[in-house]
Amino acid sequence: MLHITVRRESDIPLYRQVTESVAKLIHQGALTPGARLPPVREVAAELGLTRLTVHSAYTELQARGLIESHVGRGTFVAARLPTALRHKSPPEPPSGWQAQGVLADLLRLSDRPDLLSLAQAMPAPETFPTRAFGRALVAALADPSSVGYGPIQGESALREQVSRVLLERGVATSPDGVLITAGAQQAIELAIRAFTAPGDTMLIEEPTYPGVIEAAARHELRLIGIPMDAGGLDLAALEAVCRERAPRLLYTVATFHNPTGVSLAPDRRRALLECARTRRFLILEDDVYGQLGYDAQSPPTLKAGDTDGRVIYSMSFSKMLMPGLRLGALVAEPEQLAALAAAKHSIDLVCSSLLQRTLASYLRQGRLDAHLAGVCARYRERRDATLVALDRFRDRWQWTRPAGGLNVWVTLPEGIGERDFCLAALERGVGIAPGRAFFAQPQRHGFFRLCFGAHSPEQLTQAITVLGTLLSEQTRRRTLLLARASRESAPLV
Amino acid sequence: MLHITVRRESDIPLYRQVTESVAKLIHQGALTPGARLPPVREVAAELGLTRLTVHSAYTELQARGLIESHVGRGTFVAARLPTALRHKSPPEPPSGWQAQGVLADLLRLSDRPDLLSLAQAMPAPETFPTRAFGRALVAALADPSSVGYGPIQGESALREQVSRVLLERGVATSPDGVLITAGAQQAIELAIRAFTAPGDTMLIEEPTYPGVIEAAARHELRLIGIPMDAGGLDLAALEAVCRERAPRLLYTVATFHNPTGVSLAPDRRRALLECARTRRFLILEDDVYGQLGYDAQSPPTLKAGDTDGRVIYSMSFSKMLMPGLRLGALVAEPEQLAALAAAKHSIDLVCSSLLQRTLASYLRQGRLDAHLAGVCARYRERRDATLVALDRFRDRWQWTRPAGGLNVWVTLPEGIGERDFCLAALERGVGIAPGRAFFAQPQRHGFFRLCFGAHSPEQLTQAITVLGTLLSEQTRRRTLLLARASRESAPLV
Repeated sequence: MLHITVRRESDIPLYRQVTESVAKLIHQGALTPGARLPPVREVAAELGLTRLTVHSAYTELQARGLIESHVGRGTFVAARLPTALRHKSPPEPPSGWQAQGVLADLLRLSDRPDLLSLAQAMPAPETFPTRAFGRALVAALADPSSVGYGPIQGESALREQVSRVLLERGVATSPDGVLITAGAQQAIELAIRAFTAPGDTMLIEEPTYPGVIEAAARHELRLIGIPMDAGGLDLAALEAVCRERAPRLLYTVATFHNPTGVSLAPDRRRALLECARTRRFLILEDDVYGQLGYDAQSPPTLKAGDTDGRVIYSMSFSKMLMPGLRLGALVAEPEQLAALAAAKHSIDLVCSSLLQRTLASYLRQGRLDAHLAGVCARYRERRDATLVALDRFRDRWQWTRPAGGLNVWVTLPEGIGERDFCLAALERGVGIAPGRAFFAQPQRHGFFRLCFGAHSPEQLTQAITVLGTLLSEQTRRRTLLLARASRESAPLV
Repeated sequence: MLHITVRRESDIPLYRQVTESVAKLIHQGALTPGARLPPVREVAAELGLTRLTVHSAYTELQARGLIESHVGRGTFVAARLPTALRHKSPPEPPSGWQAQGVLADLLRLSDRPDLLSLAQAMPAPETFPTRAFGRALVAALADPSSVGYGPIQGESALREQVSRVLLERGVATSPDGVLITAGAQQAIELAIRAFTAPGDTMLIEEPTYPGVIEAAARHELRLIGIPMDAGGLDLAALEAVCRERAPRLLYTVATFHNPTGVSLAPDRRRALLECARTRRFLILEDDVYGQLGYDAQSPPTLKAGDTDGRVIYSMSFSKMLMPGLRLGALVAEPEQLAALAAAKHSIDLVCSSLLQRTLASYLRQGRLDAHLAGVCARYRERRDATLVALDRFRDRWQWTRPAGGLNVWVTLPEGIGERDFCLAALERGVGIAPGRAFFAQPQRHGFFRLCFGAHSPEQLTQAITVLGTLLSEQTRRRTLLLARASRESAPLV
């Protein structure tokens, strides 16, 4: 039995209370190295908490190196407690970045069978063309050079297929203009390395994909967020920033944006390119969702309209095919590509030649079009179910209506804290990503992202019902509290 | 026909002369965008050069964005010539780093069928267990979650197998102490990111693996090389450096070192650990060759003797199994591992879950031991053939006698320039890596690395005979030249 107590009325989430209490017992020596901890279900029963809450606490303690879990044996206080070995901290993340901890917990928990997680922008696993891939893999393995190192720029067979696929997105490039990357996150890392120096100004959409905030922080860039509306990036705000600062790089998910799902309006695309030309900055166009359009034709890429090599174009097969391939591609001018390839070499030499050749042969068979038609039909249905379910609570929240991609962005009402809301949702078995993760700076307002790709319409409806009900409860409680506060308030004398 | 001439007697390599001449024609406008260039064999015949020389020039021109090659159509002056688009250069590489260009050329050319390349530390492709892997891949693909994202730290099934494999190397860790990486190059990148800041001092062996020099240069570390002898790192030199500077990190391939093949002597291992403890630096132990020992038992790892968490241990499956997997692992203390995992997430999120699960299932079948026994027998034979062939020219060069790994290090005689030697060898169809690539600073002396893993004893004998003959010629020519110079020298009046 653990001698700890939790306070339900506290502002500190329950799992955090358990974490800190156990950590304290270890630091005080009340729990000694090697001591066995009671199992999750026992602690949950003892304290009257859900197992998920206690599991979250144990996960956190394990991440800190304070406890160890051995399959089949149980959980123990770490035999050797961590010492302060790291001589220095890596570059400071932006202030308030700790909010990311919630997201990290969510992602850690996202494969728990009892959690309905809409936190990660996952494509639907049942659509993964695993059988066709299996055949292509075995064929590729017949040639041992498929498991050698291969060229830094990527296998020529895959670069050829990528250049063909990109014609769909209006991107005209020869295979020589393509660099294979380990997904779009690596493309961000490479572009930052190749084209910026610490202290440089980088522009992002606000909100944006968390991975770009993290990478920019590690490279000590000054991040400036440009607000968005239903037509995407606010060009007037962009111009205003450019008058004050000379940005090096602007990162945009111009089509089916993450996390909001909106697309940059056609006239703004032209204006953005013009602004990049005049103000002499580069654009990193992250087009991972570009092929996932559900209503009409997807908008053309920025790269399609790029006449003077200002756009570094990035795509990935993670969302349109399977994340586990870890393959994407960059398209840029030859000199830019050389700088990007040098950075790639320094990070991990090359991508797996086996997976590259397998993907090339899958694409060569012309299977991608049929696959995309299939998944887009499925995602359209899921997007629609999501919007219908959100509409049932229309007086509670606001939300975006994406024409493609995997994400919907929900705005919480005034006074509802997104952190508490997300943790409470987690306690009820629904995972969502808190808005904080998508901004470089803390926001006054509360948001969350809802990813609809990996769940059936029924599951989506169920999850959103849980969220809507929870929000109704929290709103009611807040109203009562405010009413009581105004009734019982004493003069401040 | 190209209107260029080459001068055989020049110090400038022939391929570089062709490159610069064509570049000049393009810059002067004599060759206009879109103009067709004559094919390689035509230019070679016209100028009396080998095709390899002209091919190298074209490759270089293409890398600069000046020409474009279209399969089946030919080679053309680039339609849009590169403009100075990059606003800044990435951090300056160490002085003289341009010598790396030769290595890059070699690696680019290493898959040409007419080249016998001993430049890359490649394992033998015919040993790759592709059939067993094919079966494991298809089995893994039966579960769609194999192609999802998976945990940042790596698939637990693979971490479990890695912890089992590492017992062979005396490294005792639970699966929780393992982080899966995209090979050992990524491990270097992660350790530098997690534990150093720009301006910090990092120690390397001299010579060392080029990838660590490149990564450290990009992170603007001060690199200090510690000399080596037949017993590995010179501990007295290390102590002397530590008295002057406070290093953060020391990188070592303590077992079957790259490029020399020597192993750190047991007493020096203890002394190195003690030095790290006293001087408070971390050691990154790169053990990619540790399982490839041919004579007696491999020396124990530094990590095996690490009592206070100073050693970050890195291993990879590239050399012992197949490079195309791009999978390796780091072992470190929990807090260190958390910092490494955060850096990993920022670089590329995760490694391919599919390849991780496949490798885990291959390892679970207990196939690795038999595989290692087979490859070690093969490499022993190749190592022996290499040493015998080198011995035929014993009065020409000096060389190391590795007890494991894939590399032999050859010292050229006084007065023979390694760059010229390597390029001349390339012209005769043998690729070797010039010594320059393995040092942070230029060296007075000439060296090259010879990798014996991927060629038959007959090929190795043939290649080394070409090298030995070339060296004999160059030495003879130099002797004649010196004799003539001393005969014909006039008084300096």
